[in-house]
Amino acid sequence: MISAVVMTAPDAPLEVRAFERPELEPGGVLLRTLGSEVCGTDAHLWKGQLAGVPYPIIPGHVSVGQVAELGPAGATADVARDVSGAPLQVGQIVTFLDVYGTCGRCWYCTVGHATTRCPSRKVYGVTLSADDGLLGGWSEYIYLRPGVHVVPLPAELDWRAFLAGGCGMPTALHAVTLGEIAFGDTVVVQGAGPVGLCAAVLAQLRGAGSVIVVGGPEVRLDAATRFGADAVIDIGSTTPQERLAAVRDATQGRGADVTIEATGAPGAVPEGMRLTRDAGRYVVVGQYTDAGDATFNPHLDLNQKHLEIRGCWGSDVGHVYRSVQVMARYGRQFPWTELISREYGLDSAQAALEDVAAQRVVKALIVPAR
Amino acid sequence: MISAVVMTAPDAPLEVRAFERPELEPGGVLLRTLGSEVCGTDAHLWKGQLAGVPYPIIPGHVSVGQVAELGPAGATADVARDVSGAPLQVGQIVTFLDVYGTCGRCWYCTVGHATTRCPSRKVYGVTLSADDGLLGGWSEYIYLRPGVHVVPLPAELDWRAFLAGGCGMPTALHAVTLGEIAFGDTVVVQGAGPVGLCAAVLAQLRGAGSVIVVGGPEVRLDAATRFGADAVIDIGSTTPQERLAAVRDATQGRGADVTIEATGAPGAVPEGMRLTRDAGRYVVVGQYTDAGDATFNPHLDLNQKHLEIRGCWGSDVGHVYRSVQVMARYGRQFPWTELISREYGLDSAQAALEDVAAQRVVKALIVPAR
Amino acid sequence: MISAVVMTAPDAPLEVRAFERPELEPGGVLLRTLGSEVCGTDAHLWKGQLAGVPYPIIPGHVSVGQVAELGPAGATADVARDVSGAPLQVGQIVTFLDVYGTCGRCWYCTVGHATTRCPSRKVYGVTLSADDGLLGGWSEYIYLRPGVHVVPLPAELDWRAFLAGGCGMPTALHAVTLGEIAFGDTVVVQGAGPVGLCAAVLAQLRGAGSVIVVGGPEVRLDAATRFGADAVIDIGSTTPQERLAAVRDATQGRGADVTIEATGAPGAVPEGMRLTRDAGRYVVVGQYTDAGDATFNPHLDLNQKHLEIRGCWGSDVGHVYRSVQVMARYGRQFPWTELISREYGLDSAQAALEDVAAQRVVKALIVPAR
Amino acid sequence: MISAVVMTAPDAPLEVRAFERPELEPGGVLLRTLGSEVCGTDAHLWKGQLAGVPYPIIPGHVSVGQVAELGPAGATADVARDVSGAPLQVGQIVTFLDVYGTCGRCWYCTVGHATTRCPSRKVYGVTLSADDGLLGGWSEYIYLRPGVHVVPLPAELDWRAFLAGGCGMPTALHAVTLGEIAFGDTVVVQGAGPVGLCAAVLAQLRGAGSVIVVGGPEVRLDAATRFGADAVIDIGSTTPQERLAAVRDATQGRGADVTIEATGAPGAVPEGMRLTRDAGRYVVVGQYTDAGDATFNPHLDLNQKHLEIRGCWGSDVGHVYRSVQVMARYGRQFPWTELISREYGLDSAQAALEDVAAQRVVKALIVPAR
Repeated sequence: MISAVVMTAPDAPLEVRAFERPELEPGGVLLRTLGSEVCGTDAHLWKGQLAGVPYPIIPGHVSVGQVAELGPAGATADVARDVSGAPLQVGQIVTFLDVYGTCGRCWYCTVGHATTRCPSRKVYGVTLSADDGLLGGWSEYIYLRPGVHVVPLPAELDWRAFLAGGCGMPTALHAVTLGEIAFGDTVVVQGAGPVGLCAAVLAQLRGAGSVIVVGGPEVRLDAATRFGADAVIDIGSTTPQERLAAVRDATQGRGADVTIEATGAPGAVPEGMRLTRDAGRYVVVGQYTDAGDATFNPHLDLNQKHLEIRGCWGSDVGHVYRSVQVMARYGRQFPWTELISREYGLDSAQAALEDVAAQRVVKALIVPAR
Repeated sequence: MISAVVMTAPDAPLEVRAFERPELEPGGVLLRTLGSEVCGTDAHLWKGQLAGVPYPIIPGHVSVGQVAELGPAGATADVARDVSGAPLQVGQIVTFLDVYGTCGRCWYCTVGHATTRCPSRKVYGVTLSADDGLLGGWSEYIYLRPGVHVVPLPAELDWRAFLAGGCGMPTALHAVTLGEIAFGDTVVVQGAGPVGLCAAVLAQLRGAGSVIVVGGPEVRLDAATRFGADAVIDIGSTTPQERLAAVRDATQGRGADVTIEATGAPGAVPEGMRLTRDAGRYVVVGQYTDAGDATFNPHLDLNQKHLEIRGCWGSDVGHVYRSVQVMARYGRQFPWTELISREYGLDSAQAALEDVAAQRVVKALIVPAR
Repeated sequence: MISAVVMTAPDAPLEVRAFERPELEPGGVLLRTLGSEVCGTDAHLWKGQLAGVPYPIIPGHVSVGQVAELGPAGATADVARDVSGAPLQVGQIVTFLDVYGTCGRCWYCTVGHATTRCPSRKVYGVTLSADDGLLGGWSEYIYLRPGVHVVPLPAELDWRAFLAGGCGMPTALHAVTLGEIAFGDTVVVQGAGPVGLCAAVLAQLRGAGSVIVVGGPEVRLDAATRFGADAVIDIGSTTPQERLAAVRDATQGRGADVTIEATGAPGAVPEGMRLTRDAGRYVVVGQYTDAGDATFNPHLDLNQKHLEIRGCWGSDVGHVYRSVQVMARYGRQFPWTELISREYGLDSAQAALEDVAAQRVVKALIVPAR
Repeated sequence: MISAVVMTAPDAPLEVRAFERPELEPGGVLLRTLGSEVCGTDAHLWKGQLAGVPYPIIPGHVSVGQVAELGPAGATADVARDVSGAPLQVGQIVTFLDVYGTCGRCWYCTVGHATTRCPSRKVYGVTLSADDGLLGGWSEYIYLRPGVHVVPLPAELDWRAFLAGGCGMPTALHAVTLGEIAFGDTVVVQGAGPVGLCAAVLAQLRGAGSVIVVGGPEVRLDAATRFGADAVIDIGSTTPQERLAAVRDATQGRGADVTIEATGAPGAVPEGMRLTRDAGRYVVVGQYTDAGDATFNPHLDLNQKHLEIRGCWGSDVGHVYRSVQVMARYGRQFPWTELISREYGLDSAQAALEDVAAQRVVKALIVPAR
């Protein structure tokens, strides 16, 4: 029997349940879970703030595991392969894109080239039910259905290092890519959670001239500084006017060339527009749930500024693949694992969830083997 | 003596004053005015809604004239040339970029490549004083200082046809360029004034699959239809919900691929965000003055939508040059001069201004020779 | 029994063979063929110039048909749908992307976002064998396997009009999209075959200021003129130097802003580099088979010119979808069906092939009902 | 009197001549030279391989100096300012863009937005004559005419560190920017001279997953490794086939995502096309002089590959400004000054030139105070 954490309903205590070991379909893969992250989304799930969640679910959408078993391979098409086309091997350490079932046939997939808006997308640990199997990461084993996009971790990337970025890394990688940072740009990152911290690192890996992190609390700002931020501004002890003045002072009065929002607070959006220079670019990636409205001045904050704003939703397999390559390549420079505040066994998942919800930790992992 | 219309102060009646014929500097050009447009900006100027205007001014920022006299050409550098480098000739019919004095040296001009945000910009008919000379178009003659960017009209482009677009054409051309319309896209244009009508035409010249104009009043929507709009939606007789439903119906439920805002009403901006499909693009060009705030939902209207928004400010000489080429090339298809509702002599400028402010006309011209 | 043209081997005479009506899989579609184009690729196939062709094949890769039968629909996923997600209906008139089986899982499909380089692609009428069924268009019926991308023709787009563009239209649409034509640009198109003619039309639907077609023979240049080309240059009666001089004369000495190559002749490529202005853009789409090498000067033709060159391979379903929208929308302006020189029945396919190979026709169609 | 090195004619020995201290115009600046680089262009100048050079010249196009004197400032417009608009101060340490006199008015400057193709450009140390003053860097003092673009060095960027990059850094920055490297990309750099080494560094500052330098001799490849290249391939001991195999082995058979050419050898260009993956991008920046033709296969190397090639010519002030910001920010990570092989006094300029021409040094500086 396989143990897994089950979130039975919003606000209900998490349970550890026993599951049968699944029969594998052709092309399916069984992973022995090494670790799975706990992120803000899990807290949102627990509070019932996301629509369309088929409780009970096994949470955990970004995970790393070791290939334990491969489904029967009849036809060539049925061989489970990684994203580069190599057949998977038992014993390999891999991660996978949590989004599964992007159809490749709908208007968004084909004409729109906007696969993160495909209506067929299902997400491991979020929109797949525990009634349908081991489809979430807080579990001893994860079942990868045929067609799940698998990315192997290179030898030089420890699985803990990868999970230290967690879903924050591909999310930030998508946002920073949309930011089109030019060499030497001043980049402001709003928010110092996992997405914000990853964005602050990735901005340096685009050759930013200066990276300013606006956020809190202190434990997170300290992490930002350790990971190379040139300046941090504590959201708890400053007014919007003071923050605007600080950014302008650092940019000869112009404002940030590129601003990345990763906060979740609606009011951060108009503030971010103002922190950005005329003809600059602003990426909004942190408004993951509906937390209310915001007010801005279309003339001053957008049109006269000649400002570009890009909403950024979801990640695709390319973002995960690229995150893996970047984390493997720049691990000497950025000690990823320092972002992990604490690891929890399956039976401590409830504590993990509460610590994340309370922002007591930067990054928390579920490690079933503990 | 040369007659010119002078706006002495906000809300004061326009006057026709006599000016001396100017002495030309090397590289300067004296144009005999054929026509000059009256646009919404002139109404804003008269109502005192723009900051930094050095009244008294001679209004008229987009104009066409015939080269009447060329300044003394000593050094080669002093020869007045058009934008393609050809020396200007007396008798040529030309227009010019109203923006003058973009410095080419500041951070925005050099590093930022955002010349429409250069702080040295001066604008004929707007930010140049009548005390300094014939620096506006509602005048028998216009003095082009050395360095003004001059664009000749090709033989096949009648000067009236060019002025029928007026400043709306380069403004719309800038906005539609930022819209990055793909072949077959559905384009919604908010606003049916000169900018909106030009945008509706230019969308067709990007191969849009369908162009929907949302605006009013009826006289302008009729013009939109005559100029090829596939559908018009009257802002006066519909609710935002009805407009959203109409656009979704026309796009299999998705919304517009690209939306261009050209209204001036702050509330149009959140509405335009909603009219645009997920992963679509929204260009805001009509918020030319501060008309107040707007409220939106950062999660629903921006982040989850994966929406791109681009504020679009000003035009550069490339936009004017390209407008001239496009209007000359596609004049058989689009009968530009039909956009001109009425022509006024210098002594009727007051009436022209009032007609434009009241939206009684689509496009009004000042024609000094009348 | 169903009649279809079979190309049994390179250089062998075409045969008309009888096939059984197929059993439909869930999600499969049987089309009654209205028409199928004959294009240069078919001539290449017949001459054995393409690698990896599983003769015998039924030629015909771009076709239009009427839905005659739909496969059994068990699960929702098995319902045959068009590209916008609407279930297909018997009687509908549709086209489809000839490329089938793009995997959506390989590196090129996911990380590279270059689906036209997916190694799993199969092409109706080219890389699918007649032994496997009715997988080409020169046939009374075409069998669409589950997953083929289907695009309905709107009521205002006659099927003959769509086939008049044939595969040349999505190919040209892809190339012109990569050309990033700006309003008013001078565009040179090298080649006056179907791709070149479509590119000349599409350049006008990007607002080109001038379109110059370089090619031959006269029948094709006449078509270019009728479809709006501002100038044509006969490749048969001019030297490269004369062509360069002509293009420079038309552009104040600069050269074309954007050049589109659609010739198939290797020597056209260095010539096209020279026809393009400094800092211009050159799209190479016509080098569909290996016709030998070309020589150029990297300093003069590329580096000092600050030239951008884009190879353009294949089309995806978005290009077909957009072609359909554009042809439907701009049919009054461009009388597509005039491009059709002749229609042939199945038993005249051999004559059609020879006429295309000899460039005696602009566009030839196979119409089984003739 | 001021000493400066003069190149009187191609192949003639360099001379040190005495010049009068110049009278400064309003807006002019006199710099006391701290150092000036010796680069491949200087060797080309000496061999007479560049057209349009007004010998005698004072060589030295990228230099750093201390502001010694400012011209008389009458009008506000005459105050010498840096690129951010701040008035220059005596004693400041600055560099400047060698290109001077970009007109801001021609078609390339205005419509084409391709200022590096402006025909009015003059270049310090290259196309300005010693007869007209101290207009090159191998001199005790340099005279900056009004309008020269000046970029101050921040306190944390030592002048030697900046010159260690020299003109190679903005050139590489331009090329790498055009390369549009995505996170995790494999980047091949052809050439291990100053441009190639800077490109290899900058690729890391775009988050490349792997950087492979193809070049020689060993001293330069060693520098590449010290500056972070993941692999080097010695051009002297490998065949093109071996190099292609090595790059494919490192990329699961695909080839480089982005390749940057910085060699000057025409044959490198077709090789670079082949080293790049399908749908990849290739930037050609090293073909600075006409060294002959190259041959390629348009079908295999360009069209079927769906390859994008970008010629990259010159730098603008933004590239210099951004180089300064990047070198200042990432100096701890990249010990720039290690690239300097040797410093020479004015009277050893001849030896410097010969060492550079013979590739005996990575980077050589002229330091007048030595």
